[in-house]
Amino acid sequence: MNQIIKDLNWRYAVKKYDSSKKIEEQDLAILKETISLSPSSMGLQAYKVLVIENPEIRSKLQEKSFGQTQVTEASHLFVFCGFTEITEDYINLMVEKTAETRNQTLSELEGFKNFLGSKMTMDSDKLEIWTAKQTYIALGHLMQTAAQLRIDSTPMEGFDPHGYDEVLNLSEKGLKANLVCTLGFRAEDDIYQHMQKVRKNHTDLFELV
Amino acid sequence: MNQIIKDLNWRYAVKKYDSSKKIEEQDLAILKETISLSPSSMGLQAYKVLVIENPEIRSKLQEKSFGQTQVTEASHLFVFCGFTEITEDYINLMVEKTAETRNQTLSELEGFKNFLGSKMTMDSDKLEIWTAKQTYIALGHLMQTAAQLRIDSTPMEGFDPHGYDEVLNLSEKGLKANLVCTLGFRAEDDIYQHMQKVRKNHTDLFELV
Repeated sequence: MNQIIKDLNWRYAVKKYDSSKKIEEQDLAILKETISLSPSSMGLQAYKVLVIENPEIRSKLQEKSFGQTQVTEASHLFVFCGFTEITEDYINLMVEKTAETRNQTLSELEGFKNFLGSKMTMDSDKLEIWTAKQTYIALGHLMQTAAQLRIDSTPMEGFDPHGYDEVLNLSEKGLKANLVCTLGFRAEDDIYQHMQKVRKNHTDLFELV
Repeated sequence: MNQIIKDLNWRYAVKKYDSSKKIEEQDLAILKETISLSPSSMGLQAYKVLVIENPEIRSKLQEKSFGQTQVTEASHLFVFCGFTEITEDYINLMVEKTAETRNQTLSELEGFKNFLGSKMTMDSDKLEIWTAKQTYIALGHLMQTAAQLRIDSTPMEGFDPHGYDEVLNLSEKGLKANLVCTLGFRAEDDIYQHMQKVRKNHTDLFELV
């Protein structure tokens, strides 16, 4: 079997972590760089990822996550937050970053800047959905890299975004939590690791046109 | 540099494909299996991926994609479609699949079935957003595997979903196109391959709590 497919088959949504095992710094750097390299609409990266290490904060977040033990027992907790607005400052930051990286002048990037600027007037509900979706691409990349490094992960939509907002003061930062991923190492007695992955047949998943 | 990071850096959003180069069958099988192994909320895989090979259909879809040439010139065109409703038949299919795969009885899965059933009554707008988000995870996996196989890709949100619906008769199948990905091989003269990737600093992307 192809190695990538082996790695993806090794992965499962961990229910119980071995809290004594921690992700090493060099692997953490690879996980973060994976998120950074994830594609996003117009390259805007209109999100932020909070890496929660503080145990007290993690306990509070567990209460807002239906008590799921992974939130406190995994080595790391990543909270993906979409922007709730695109500010002029942010667009300037990205345009300046583009100019600097690609050695272009700001006037060469005027059209690009105006194009990005059109997102500033986007309806706020639509904007939140759009920025949230981008974080799911990053999650896909993150989980694949984790599996390839033999680091376990659990993606979670089951948490209270308002509760996360309260604990992490997200709305005042223009952020909304839309996705959580715990990362670490499966406990030996997590029975879910022995369960066969359930997937529909390719004939039900794909249609050739 | 770590090989995964090298692979992700090799990737860029291709603007111009070499239409003479086709993805080999064995690689296509790996790309499809990657999508199949992608995690989804409750394991429901509430989406379908249309693999468009028919050149006439691809021309029609190009018209609904602001004329982007990748739609016709890439080796393959994948259209990710979220379910617009979760039917009882679909839940039965997934429960039966679970029973078969894990050698469980249907009565053991009664609780799981009821849990899935709760999604049947979800408000249709919310359901569409929720199923759409899941396809973005699959996109992340797909693009990473493609890069690791040295296959190029271009993710696209810039298309007319209603136009796609007309060409592919999606709504009568309970589907809505929410994401497109072209796959193939970059043209030698695609100038975008030489441009430096623009990413904000880790200090702007991550926050340690």
